[in-house]
Amino acid sequence: MLRDLVKRTRTYRRFYQEEAIDTSTLHELVDLARLAGSARNVQPLKYVVINEPSACVTIFPHLGWAGYLPDWPCPGEGERPSAYIICVLDTTIASEADCDLGIATQNILLGATEIGLGGCRIASISPKLHNDLDLSDHLKILLVLALGKPKEQVVIDAMDQDGDCQYWRDQDQIHHVPKRSLEDIIIKTDL
Amino acid sequence: MLRDLVKRTRTYRRFYQEEAIDTSTLHELVDLARLAGSARNVQPLKYVVINEPSACVTIFPHLGWAGYLPDWPCPGEGERPSAYIICVLDTTIASEADCDLGIATQNILLGATEIGLGGCRIASISPKLHNDLDLSDHLKILLVLALGKPKEQVVIDAMDQDGDCQYWRDQDQIHHVPKRSLEDIIIKTDL
Repeated sequence: MLRDLVKRTRTYRRFYQEEAIDTSTLHELVDLARLAGSARNVQPLKYVVINEPSACVTIFPHLGWAGYLPDWPCPGEGERPSAYIICVLDTTIASEADCDLGIATQNILLGATEIGLGGCRIASISPKLHNDLDLSDHLKILLVLALGKPKEQVVIDAMDQDGDCQYWRDQDQIHHVPKRSLEDIIIKTDL
Repeated sequence: MLRDLVKRTRTYRRFYQEEAIDTSTLHELVDLARLAGSARNVQPLKYVVINEPSACVTIFPHLGWAGYLPDWPCPGEGERPSAYIICVLDTTIASEADCDLGIATQNILLGATEIGLGGCRIASISPKLHNDLDLSDHLKILLVLALGKPKEQVVIDAMDQDGDCQYWRDQDQIHHVPKRSLEDIIIKTDL
């Protein structure tokens, strides 16, 4: 059932790094993005798929992790992603793709959950990654999906009344994500 | 399986208007959006849920339909949406939510497909809708999801080499959507 899949599709930042993800699996996940709706059907998103360990080593230092966890700079060696799907805007097709980006990456992350994987949308990306990927000038990196077999527990909590949205880790390293209530986000039913 | 659900989650613009969608169903769909990931977890999206026939009559004229079908201005009486979920940005929380908007609406539309419904993301919206919904100034309408029980067949075609992305309807009123190939959108595998 989709609701169960949606609930389990959380943001994961620590992985069993030794668990490889093969290329065909990554291509199947990108195919879920390909089959998604696209504004005016222009489909301006393209993808770079990375799973070679040496290539992962190249990508990793370009990424910024978990802004709300100042004491945790990034996943340590052994807990890093074993694959990446890098989402790129083809600027010869469209000048932006932000809603498309959400649609496409949600399909990918739901698909990852279904096969026991998980991941994280990373928007904090060094401009040098473009160079390391040897991308043409008309291709603009929008987001990096870090993927792997999750090695952490993530739970959804009810948001406190003070509206603090910052995620946090408890002493058992369980990652807590406060979510607004349904009553808070449905502002009106009918007129 | 998710792939099947993704393939069936197409954009539908003609519906069995007489098939009502109850409020609890709409709230369950919004709950799928609530449970989605959100950039920096700020969750700036809010929702107006509409299913009363008289309210649907109020919403409908504010929407622009299917830019690529000049001979078809909008669904006719009897084929119109029986519900709407209007996605609103709370600008006291964030100044934009475009990627979140894609994530949230994809969860909603996948959830709709699962229960035999379907819909359309509409971004062509009259500014007067804000007034008719009696929304506060800090709430900005981003997108309207038109929902109903689909009354049309939508198929995915391979995109021609000329790269024409315009959807079209054949003589049997089947709606065709050209999609890029996987080879076209995966620009690189590893470095």
